[in-house]
Amino acid sequence: MTTEALAQGVLRGDVRALARAISIVEDGRPEAAALLKALFPHAGRALLVGVTGPPGAGKSTLVDRLTAHLRKAGKSVGVVAVDPTSPYSGGAILGDRIRMQGHALDDGVFIRSLATRGHLGGLSAATGHVLTVMSASGKDVILVETVGVGQDEVAIVEAADVSLVVLVPGLGDEVQALKAGIMEIADVFVVNKSDRDGAERVVAEIESMLQISGPDAQRPEIVRTAAAANQGLAELWDAIERFCVAAEGSGLMAKKKRQHVKHQFDDTLRERLLREVRTRALPGDEGERLLDRLAARELDPVSAAEEVLRRVGLA
Amino acid sequence: MTTEALAQGVLRGDVRALARAISIVEDGRPEAAALLKALFPHAGRALLVGVTGPPGAGKSTLVDRLTAHLRKAGKSVGVVAVDPTSPYSGGAILGDRIRMQGHALDDGVFIRSLATRGHLGGLSAATGHVLTVMSASGKDVILVETVGVGQDEVAIVEAADVSLVVLVPGLGDEVQALKAGIMEIADVFVVNKSDRDGAERVVAEIESMLQISGPDAQRPEIVRTAAAANQGLAELWDAIERFCVAAEGSGLMAKKKRQHVKHQFDDTLRERLLREVRTRALPGDEGERLLDRLAARELDPVSAAEEVLRRVGLA
Repeated sequence: MTTEALAQGVLRGDVRALARAISIVEDGRPEAAALLKALFPHAGRALLVGVTGPPGAGKSTLVDRLTAHLRKAGKSVGVVAVDPTSPYSGGAILGDRIRMQGHALDDGVFIRSLATRGHLGGLSAATGHVLTVMSASGKDVILVETVGVGQDEVAIVEAADVSLVVLVPGLGDEVQALKAGIMEIADVFVVNKSDRDGAERVVAEIESMLQISGPDAQRPEIVRTAAAANQGLAELWDAIERFCVAAEGSGLMAKKKRQHVKHQFDDTLRERLLREVRTRALPGDEGERLLDRLAARELDPVSAAEEVLRRVGLA
Repeated sequence: MTTEALAQGVLRGDVRALARAISIVEDGRPEAAALLKALFPHAGRALLVGVTGPPGAGKSTLVDRLTAHLRKAGKSVGVVAVDPTSPYSGGAILGDRIRMQGHALDDGVFIRSLATRGHLGGLSAATGHVLTVMSASGKDVILVETVGVGQDEVAIVEAADVSLVVLVPGLGDEVQALKAGIMEIADVFVVNKSDRDGAERVVAEIESMLQISGPDAQRPEIVRTAAAANQGLAELWDAIERFCVAAEGSGLMAKKKRQHVKHQFDDTLRERLLREVRTRALPGDEGERLLDRLAARELDPVSAAEEVLRRVGLA
């Protein structure tokens, strides 16, 4: 199949074309560039919802039940699950197969696990490209779930129109401390498993943290859910929609969308630039010989980088 | 103070010079390049121990008590705590002040919290530079603790000679799943809070996972600790030393050290390259105008990156 035919398939919403196109951009194969050029103008219509929070918060169940709620409302849904993986094996832990089996026969739901790639901004670059392809395929809503805490959250914020931070009662002190790091990420807070003891305490804690952060133009709502019991999903979706309406009005949404394309551009430029510079400045085994000198500490990384820049005429 | 004088101060082990030098390389200030050039040849002697694992595993207490154990053995210790932070505020959550207050008056311990910087490989670049400075100051052991799960772990592995993965009894299923993602990172497993129920089950689970992974030249040891009760720290240090001796013998340590400098070089090159290319290809407000076209989807990120490469003569 030509890249053009594949792009046409994606734009028609063909499931097999979509799966194939995602693999191509995720793996960074040579056809990826042409595919992204063809699909980018048609992307940007889907609402991108990031779902983040500590391990054990029930994010996967929440995403599963929110998907069911959206399907009932007639919306098509894409799910991107960003899984932490070994830098060596490269495979996602929680495969597509064990996720959300209830939606397996529904053509209106497309689910994809995305393995984090180690380093070099692999996660954010791949996530951005996958979202472009999914959005171009005509999905109304794309839910992006991450299992990580830390850098991964940042990548989600960079890619999402609305960021949900999911918390639960009964997590330890260190997790409470972690919350502070993701407080500013939240557009909507979700207190999941809210049928358990301690839910009100979590809500109160979030409220007091939000008060410390001062009066804001748009203070995040706090929604109680018990996703496993199908409670609070309609209320959650309403809160997401209220956020979007307010963010459209205030210009925040336009700012976020500008940031998304900025990061996609930055990631793409970085990748291309490094590949090109390495081929030109360090051909053959010169890269390895440079490494020998670095490992022996005869040369330092800053001087080595300066030498490479000189070789490609950039210093 | 000149950069040369500052570098001399770091090499003498002066605490104020060390604190100042770390701030300079962490913030990427103009003096950072000269400082790193001066210090890199003298770095590489410290043993770098990465400490990672899910939130709630008691990593901070373990690092605190391991530090005390090492001090008793006459070793000087550096601690780098990598904290997840908001991409907006940029500040570390768990500041140096609330960490390890018991070591505050000990000149043989230097503690630094490192804020993760959002994106662009900020975490790994800054971590590598900070470790270079600390190592050059003559610390015997540097403990690098991360609070995150996901990309952060990878950065730790890239920077550490020995990676500890800390697990505890009683974490939920999702956390158990997460473990799989960090299994291959571990050089030594630590089952902390092993005075609690369920510790043997965690040990058995790790053992069965290690069996699946097949017979290895060097299978990670599993050490039980109860750091808060000061139990198992001598055993843990012995296991770390055994790993190092074996890794020196097998060539694994040399391979790891080569990887460290490779990543430091890659990070430095990436940062320099992007800065230089942006200044040359997108002077003034051209970057913003490019973003306008990307946000309007008149231009796609791949074509934009190709245009930038053409402008600097790299396409």
